[in-house]
Amino acid sequence: MYPEKQMAPRFYNDFHQNVAAARPASLPAQGMKVDRNNTALVITDPQNDFLSPKGVAWDLVKDSVAKNHTIENIESLLKTAKENKFKVFVSPHWYYPYDQKWMFGGVLEHLMHDLKMYQRKSPLSLEGFKGSGADFLERYKPYIEDGQTVITSPHKIFGPEANDLVLQLRKQAISRVILAGMSGNLCVESHMRELIEQGFEVAVVHDATASAKTNDLDGDQAAKTNFRMIASASWSTNETIDKMRSVHR
Amino acid sequence: MYPEKQMAPRFYNDFHQNVAAARPASLPAQGMKVDRNNTALVITDPQNDFLSPKGVAWDLVKDSVAKNHTIENIESLLKTAKENKFKVFVSPHWYYPYDQKWMFGGVLEHLMHDLKMYQRKSPLSLEGFKGSGADFLERYKPYIEDGQTVITSPHKIFGPEANDLVLQLRKQAISRVILAGMSGNLCVESHMRELIEQGFEVAVVHDATASAKTNDLDGDQAAKTNFRMIASASWSTNETIDKMRSVHR
Amino acid sequence: MYPEKQMAPRFYNDFHQNVAAARPASLPAQGMKVDRNNTALVITDPQNDFLSPKGVAWDLVKDSVAKNHTIENIESLLKTAKENKFKVFVSPHWYYPYDQKWMFGGVLEHLMHDLKMYQRKSPLSLEGFKGSGADFLERYKPYIEDGQTVITSPHKIFGPEANDLVLQLRKQAISRVILAGMSGNLCVESHMRELIEQGFEVAVVHDATASAKTNDLDGDQAAKTNFRMIASASWSTNETIDKMRSVHR
Amino acid sequence: MYPEKQMAPRFYNDFHQNVAAARPASLPAQGMKVDRNNTALVITDPQNDFLSPKGVAWDLVKDSVAKNHTIENIESLLKTAKENKFKVFVSPHWYYPYDQKWMFGGVLEHLMHDLKMYQRKSPLSLEGFKGSGADFLERYKPYIEDGQTVITSPHKIFGPEANDLVLQLRKQAISRVILAGMSGNLCVESHMRELIEQGFEVAVVHDATASAKTNDLDGDQAAKTNFRMIASASWSTNETIDKMRSVHR
Repeated sequence: MYPEKQMAPRFYNDFHQNVAAARPASLPAQGMKVDRNNTALVITDPQNDFLSPKGVAWDLVKDSVAKNHTIENIESLLKTAKENKFKVFVSPHWYYPYDQKWMFGGVLEHLMHDLKMYQRKSPLSLEGFKGSGADFLERYKPYIEDGQTVITSPHKIFGPEANDLVLQLRKQAISRVILAGMSGNLCVESHMRELIEQGFEVAVVHDATASAKTNDLDGDQAAKTNFRMIASASWSTNETIDKMRSVHR
Repeated sequence: MYPEKQMAPRFYNDFHQNVAAARPASLPAQGMKVDRNNTALVITDPQNDFLSPKGVAWDLVKDSVAKNHTIENIESLLKTAKENKFKVFVSPHWYYPYDQKWMFGGVLEHLMHDLKMYQRKSPLSLEGFKGSGADFLERYKPYIEDGQTVITSPHKIFGPEANDLVLQLRKQAISRVILAGMSGNLCVESHMRELIEQGFEVAVVHDATASAKTNDLDGDQAAKTNFRMIASASWSTNETIDKMRSVHR
Repeated sequence: MYPEKQMAPRFYNDFHQNVAAARPASLPAQGMKVDRNNTALVITDPQNDFLSPKGVAWDLVKDSVAKNHTIENIESLLKTAKENKFKVFVSPHWYYPYDQKWMFGGVLEHLMHDLKMYQRKSPLSLEGFKGSGADFLERYKPYIEDGQTVITSPHKIFGPEANDLVLQLRKQAISRVILAGMSGNLCVESHMRELIEQGFEVAVVHDATASAKTNDLDGDQAAKTNFRMIASASWSTNETIDKMRSVHR
Repeated sequence: MYPEKQMAPRFYNDFHQNVAAARPASLPAQGMKVDRNNTALVITDPQNDFLSPKGVAWDLVKDSVAKNHTIENIESLLKTAKENKFKVFVSPHWYYPYDQKWMFGGVLEHLMHDLKMYQRKSPLSLEGFKGSGADFLERYKPYIEDGQTVITSPHKIFGPEANDLVLQLRKQAISRVILAGMSGNLCVESHMRELIEQGFEVAVVHDATASAKTNDLDGDQAAKTNFRMIASASWSTNETIDKMRSVHR
């Protein structure tokens, strides 16, 4: 059936015997080829409100950020993509004053509005933007603001349904996405799910992201579970960098 | 800001102090009003391949199905919805032979095709359908095939992006969804995320679903984490039934 | 069947006899109720490049603008909406330098890029914006920049598929749209079609828009034909104003 | 800027001078390359209700069908695509009894429901389907029902927003579409517009379609105007066949 199936026949056989038997030991890896002509790096929300100690949501994610080395890993991906001439797309998260007047929303959506996360004054004002929680992390700006990286319109909840990411990727003939950014089980996962529904192949970089934890909920674990089950591949930053570099040779 | 905010001020204050301090104790409940004029029950994949011991994916989910009492809970929701005159929408999962020729896909997507899950012969043939893995669970048919329940076109990966669920809901003036079905972290969660991006309020019934488990991955835990963080509410079947009935009085 | 059907039984009967006979004389009017709680005014592209004599596409549309009194009519709609407390949404058209690098596009899409229509320097720069072809018409600014009008992200071809208009409308409980703006058979019509597919009721204001004409193609006629056939209603500006005002009484 | 631009520099220059001067003489052709590895034929609504004299909407379109030689041209496209190994996708139009209960809709949408156009008993019944207005034209069945043509889920208004056409195309690595079918200014044009917004290149076959005419509205003229302005190309059936065949050589 699928051409990729030939990549891992042994795992598939094992897995099918497991399914036939009882609980499967583990899921087969699927894999995704990396080719700079059709593969892009997509980063969600590389912004201060999550990734800076001054950010309003820092306390929710700081444990996960520390454990995954998220800040460094996102930078390594950006650097590797640029060095190896992969196209880079950033899908930012910005809210304007009228978004505060929305008449309903989900639990963490409300929390974002309450915390005034990712707030800008208006789509036609940059007053107060520089260095704010809505701005990009300073160390990422050389990569994001080089005039080549496509900065899409803001996504407005968690997925790219209401911005131009899908169109921007298609207009550059991109059909495969290496996905990372903040936060793991919210914007990264919603981007993963929507890009897959739109017919992209997606590999997620599971340690170039981080997620909210509360006493009883572990967003990082949820994200990593769903990356493994849903994406074509769930890679570490190191694996991803190796794949991007090996295209070069 | 949000009118709903007034529903739970104490929790919000606690939570904000927690965020300001360190790790929050737990997330505030948001809530969703249930009103039969604008609220519908949506069930994903109430089909044999997941919910019958003869189904090809039964082994993946049977532990979770048993623990959540999924089969009975979905039936209770259907029964309660019909008795209390809530509109019901079913979003089924069907594959046709040409879907087997797709050139790429994610890990569990491949698995579904390998297992020939949800297979029908063609959109214009019902040969072999009755009682197959693609058919609805026998006990649900009185509710689903009563001529009132809207059976949408099949979703094709996990979410409703490629079927008519959103349009069917809007054409009936539905803006709030009570969501349940199979499986939790795949189709239910992708439906939850997409419906929210499309501007619906969504409450998920966390024990009227079940999810795949492997030795190292627990889909049910992932789903329940994301329901709590993302939806307007994550209710038990009993809570949901109480809310649907109280509308009646 | 449809409740609205009762609005125009005679026309329907006539029309059905016509269909049964030969060519129908004319299409039945459908109608749309106007209610400020669920009805909003949506304006596409109220920008200089189409509506100012200095705009790069002025020559393409100026005849149609003059004939329809487009500039005054859009202003009358904005004024009436504000006076009668209807919510107003503007869906602008902006391009950034990376959009110039798109690898393919349609005929007038190419032309827009060639003419550098609607160009801004970057989503994070307003340098050169004020008074440019991408800026709003000066006379509309009191209505658009009053802090209440929702300015969505830019649409990127003709429809709102890649911006947040649909979500912004839903988050304000809007289900009916009064639609006008530039240009008639491109952005207005693509907005009409997409909003309808997303389950909104749409009335188009056929003389608060204008379209490109060439020696052999008449965009205005095409737009007016499709408004009549597809929308719930195609009203003049005067009719629309009467309906918006009568809500007030 | 665009690579395709080199295809027609003279026309572009002429056109720009025209825009700079006054009314442009005519629009420049854009063009689309045809390659069976990434180009598919998409046919909308090749069904009896429009294309058979017994169809409920025949009277609305019969003049346009006769003038364009629509019936023969659609068959020639299907035959040529199969002979030259292009993938073929059909996007049908089917309604079920619950669609008759939709609470609102546009002018021709109401008419379709009133005429019981494209009616089927249920998505899980084929009773009465064969030879009905909802069935495919008999002469097209050898091409559509050969087990290779992808028959998508039904579109529900005019565009493919609520079916799986876009996903099916992407899963077969199709990025360019040759589009034809019924009716021109409704389903074909809405498919054209949506496919373009989703990042496909689209060439429309302007005489392998036909449109409704009333005494005062000419849908065929509207469609042809918008095909010329919006698509990458608007070809005759003969031109299209030549292009599909020349790939073969």
